[in-house]
Amino acid sequence: MKIIIVGATGTMGKFLVKALENEHDIIKAASKDTDIDVDITSPESIENMFKQIGSFDALISTAGPTFVGPWSKLNNETFRNGVEGKMMGQINLVLIGQKYINPKGSFSLITGALTHEPQVNFANASAANGAVEGFVRAAAIELENGVRINAISPTVIENSPQYFPYFPGEIPTTMRQLEFMFRKSVFGKVTGHVIKP
Amino acid sequence: MKIIIVGATGTMGKFLVKALENEHDIIKAASKDTDIDVDITSPESIENMFKQIGSFDALISTAGPTFVGPWSKLNNETFRNGVEGKMMGQINLVLIGQKYINPKGSFSLITGALTHEPQVNFANASAANGAVEGFVRAAAIELENGVRINAISPTVIENSPQYFPYFPGEIPTTMRQLEFMFRKSVFGKVTGHVIKP
Repeated sequence: MKIIIVGATGTMGKFLVKALENEHDIIKAASKDTDIDVDITSPESIENMFKQIGSFDALISTAGPTFVGPWSKLNNETFRNGVEGKMMGQINLVLIGQKYINPKGSFSLITGALTHEPQVNFANASAANGAVEGFVRAAAIELENGVRINAISPTVIENSPQYFPYFPGEIPTTMRQLEFMFRKSVFGKVTGHVIKP
Repeated sequence: MKIIIVGATGTMGKFLVKALENEHDIIKAASKDTDIDVDITSPESIENMFKQIGSFDALISTAGPTFVGPWSKLNNETFRNGVEGKMMGQINLVLIGQKYINPKGSFSLITGALTHEPQVNFANASAANGAVEGFVRAAAIELENGVRINAISPTVIENSPQYFPYFPGEIPTTMRQLEFMFRKSVFGKVTGHVIKP
């Protein structure tokens, strides 16, 4: 299977590349320093990525820039980090990528527990996650040729302990759980689901 | 109670004005033809509205522009209707309005069943709703001085029968249900809830 991993140089992306690269043809995409450079805040850059890759079977996205910081700093400008990054970035990967994906292919986008379990400093991510999850459920009834789409919604990630203090009460998602959530989306048959640990 | 109704000239807004104006001091806001003109896609226009009104006790929003149309027409440009309108428009009403609202005041934003029950043609609204609901839950743990926030999530509205064909299987929300959902948010004590019929 030809699988694009967007965010391939991040904590989640690196793990998924290792987990899948022996079985599948993996194309790594990230903002820099990998197979293909892509700026997901730019529809032109996304289109350019798909043009270079051509057809593919699955897209995994672990790319989710948002504004993290005190509520007092949250305003129309800082909110755009999550709007252009985790939200429209991932939505545009689908709206544009649907022209390149093979029949019965799949899109697997990253959201997170913050959609329903807010934490202080992360309102921008809660909104971006909610948008992506709403979009995923809607896209699942619109995408053609058997193409599927799911959201992967982990809690704070085991390999990102620097975030633990900001997520009181959240049991971290192990890297193996994360891998298997993506496996369910890519290799299973569900669509329009928000897959949790 | 001094209550701002944003979207006061729309189907929902007009009904809520009538339902509440005998008991409360209602300030009607909409894009035109009412007490105060406001363009919710412009943070400057929102700030200007609040400056004119001064302090207030509750803000009700029924303003939710989104792109409605075929999936094939959904792209980064058309998606902005919902991003700038129903999503950032309402989020900015809160981020800016929190500087003007009285202690123990409340924000009541409009979302809708499309968050979890998608319908063909409405993916943009599903995403905008999801964003607003995620934001509402996050804002509820951040807002200070006892200020509350909730989302009001009706199905298709009884007084908008032109939409019924697009919502197969949705039992319409009556205007009285809608009014009482807003009453629960404004006059009750819950915060961070998504209030359903």
